Amino acid sequence: MIGVIAVLKIKDGTASEFEAIFAELTEKVRANEAGNKLYQLTKSRSESNTYKVLEFYADADALATHGQTEYFKDLGRRMGAVLDGRPAVELLDSVG
Amino acid sequence: MIGVIAVLKIKDGTASEFEAIFAELTEKVRANEAGNKLYQLTKSRSESNTYKVLEFYADADALATHGQTEYFKDLGRRMGAVLDGRPAVELLDSVG
Repeated sequence: MIGVIAVLKIKDGTASEFEAIFAELTEKVRANEAGNKLYQLTKSRSESNTYKVLEFYADADALATHGQTEYFKDLGRRMGAVLDGRPAVELLDSVG
Repeated sequence: MIGVIAVLKIKDGTASEFEAIFAELTEKVRANEAGNKLYQLTKSRSESNTYKVLEFYADADALATHGQTEYFKDLGRRMGAVLDGRPAVELLDSVG
């Protein structure tokens, strides 16, 4: 599997709006992507206004598919208005 | 749920030994902890000698239970010989 940790920082006061948009995205991913094995938004306890998305995909094709979906592009655009900078995306390879 | 990202750096040339010890730990966690919902070792693509463990627990009790098990303490001690410094553990709260 390929793991992803995506770090998203938001502008002050936009948590509710961000979380609502992200909930739509999570629902779409879980409903439509057989190759996605985990898609879970979390909020950091140590960094303010910071969310981390923990993701797993079956393989590189599944990860590529995720990024190419219309809902990912559409919701990503809507999310842009509340994000403080671009997301930082780290790729990981599962072991065992 | 409570999420955890644990970052473990290892000494050069100890990857096989580290991964073997961690495989034992993963097996024990998955077999014994009903409150653990994810326990997956990954290797970073961008940082050498760096592993990240992605974890989810049902609640704070489940997380506390994990750290108090004999196998966690025992395998943690064995792992200490190949780790380069102490693990960095970040706690996260799941959203949605």
